[in-house]
Amino acid sequence: MDTKRTDVNKLGEFGLIEHLTKQAELKNPSSVYGIGDDAAVIKSSSGLSVVSTDMLVEGIHFDLMYTPLKHLGYKAVVVNLSDIYAMNALPKQITVSIAISNRFSVEALEELYEGIHQACAFYNVDLVGGDTTSSLKGLYISVTAIGEVEVDKIAYRNTAKVGDLICVTGSLGAAYLGLQILEREKQVYISSPGVQPELGESKYLIERQLKPEARRDMINLFSKNQLVPTAMIDISDGLASELFHICKQSGVGAYIEETGVPIHPEAEQMAIKFKLDPITCALSGGEDYELLFTVRPEDLEKVKFMPDIYIMGEVVALEDGIKLHTKGGNIHDLQAQGWRHF
Amino acid sequence: MDTKRTDVNKLGEFGLIEHLTKQAELKNPSSVYGIGDDAAVIKSSSGLSVVSTDMLVEGIHFDLMYTPLKHLGYKAVVVNLSDIYAMNALPKQITVSIAISNRFSVEALEELYEGIHQACAFYNVDLVGGDTTSSLKGLYISVTAIGEVEVDKIAYRNTAKVGDLICVTGSLGAAYLGLQILEREKQVYISSPGVQPELGESKYLIERQLKPEARRDMINLFSKNQLVPTAMIDISDGLASELFHICKQSGVGAYIEETGVPIHPEAEQMAIKFKLDPITCALSGGEDYELLFTVRPEDLEKVKFMPDIYIMGEVVALEDGIKLHTKGGNIHDLQAQGWRHF
Repeated sequence: MDTKRTDVNKLGEFGLIEHLTKQAELKNPSSVYGIGDDAAVIKSSSGLSVVSTDMLVEGIHFDLMYTPLKHLGYKAVVVNLSDIYAMNALPKQITVSIAISNRFSVEALEELYEGIHQACAFYNVDLVGGDTTSSLKGLYISVTAIGEVEVDKIAYRNTAKVGDLICVTGSLGAAYLGLQILEREKQVYISSPGVQPELGESKYLIERQLKPEARRDMINLFSKNQLVPTAMIDISDGLASELFHICKQSGVGAYIEETGVPIHPEAEQMAIKFKLDPITCALSGGEDYELLFTVRPEDLEKVKFMPDIYIMGEVVALEDGIKLHTKGGNIHDLQAQGWRHF
Repeated sequence: MDTKRTDVNKLGEFGLIEHLTKQAELKNPSSVYGIGDDAAVIKSSSGLSVVSTDMLVEGIHFDLMYTPLKHLGYKAVVVNLSDIYAMNALPKQITVSIAISNRFSVEALEELYEGIHQACAFYNVDLVGGDTTSSLKGLYISVTAIGEVEVDKIAYRNTAKVGDLICVTGSLGAAYLGLQILEREKQVYISSPGVQPELGESKYLIERQLKPEARRDMINLFSKNQLVPTAMIDISDGLASELFHICKQSGVGAYIEETGVPIHPEAEQMAIKFKLDPITCALSGGEDYELLFTVRPEDLEKVKFMPDIYIMGEVVALEDGIKLHTKGGNIHDLQAQGWRHF
């Protein structure tokens, strides 16, 4: 994978952390002290802090056969920031812990951290701490993100009200289809190693899988328009699964128009090529890291004119269930098939 | 290990988290919202927040052959809280992420979380978030702890001054010797499985290894006596190694009296039994989770009368190095041999 190969033992645990994080400059005024002490130090804001954590496991959440380490580092950060944005908050700090087997060289870890630092720079987040240790097998990445939000702006999952509009950002399904392409090319490679992978024409889909972005722009847009979602969640496990979370936790039902579900045209075409139902890919694909949120009916005029936001349906009473109104005119129960990592 | 065995797949990822964390009540006023949303929500204090994170790996940091899962859960929390106390701060919240292979049953995880909940209850800390996923092999636990401290009370590592007194809490070496006993009995068990392990007489040493406590009492004692250490660190990798951290980061040297290093009598006896040098066990053993700290010379009268605090030496100029004055009357360079997990 890399030409130069330095054994991590050459640096030792403390040396390795120092080496990988030396470029971690603190940019946020609230980051008082970063890496190098027993704990990072953060100046409290006048509002609320939000904390989110995720563990990514090689062979479960990512396949290093087709995931460049730099992209992986970037994505590991982004998926956590997405959780912070989903609270209508702005991320400020992250910690990153990794466990690695001895097959990883210092150069490989440098690539991983290059992606981590890039994500930090792009989202204006400070890397303030972490841990580096050995694993028996494979790579484990645990990221914790910390953000800030004003008390009257926070958006929980459990506060959607009957009559609220259900909205979603961006488009769905692309990350899932990107994964299908990568898995297909992996199988081709395994059976005939000489064959070059066919990835060029699907650049967008693959990038959505390997290097997703979080919707910081939406949080800024909400703020500029003085819009506070009544409930919000990010789409990591698939739209349907996330809608179930909001409904279950808010004690409400939902009515969704299939025509309102935004599918990217490239995702739609690729789904058909794979003989998959495009709407199923959009509803259950996952890893799109878009935002699913509800707004009060009187905020219709605000969201209607915001770019890249789609009004998909309405929050209804609990007893009305969670229904999908298909293009064909049928109404049936929405199926939640999120990602399952067990 | 357990009589009943429920496969984790029966509960699914969300079901499992819910099941394991349902008893996580929020006790701290700053814990606004715990598990169940994209992120936990914490009300900011007027002072500083401190954040620390650690990853524990089966086969590297613990051996399930002699570590009860309940103790492991307890210890995983305590080692992180110890980092928060080492900032002279009080921990308030933790998140816990685990990756598990399919050999772990729901009942096994319940045991692990029983220990986690017990530590939270004892240290008055709220479990506010986490992640549960699969591993390819073994158990991985990543804990992040968040604490609070007033701005003028925080104790960094890099602020020790020449002339400061070097102090340590409690006694050292016991956790290391506890580990030696457990490893010895493991070897006996492997070669003759019928033989009962001889653990009874070494209860204290083994408990220091399997179920350590963090020195919350010291932080409270400092506060009551209006003492703020000039620098502080917790002893996870061994006294010598931690002293090197303080000296390196503060740009100073240190002079330590061997007679001032507190060794527990049981640890001393056991070291001799193992043909190990007791002082080496105390200086380099690690995992004692005591506090190493420095105080201004004018605070001598305060620390002198505090229980369980030992004055070991003095901070000297950088060019004087880090020296140990042995019982035999010799002065030599202190050797730092902390734990290495690579």
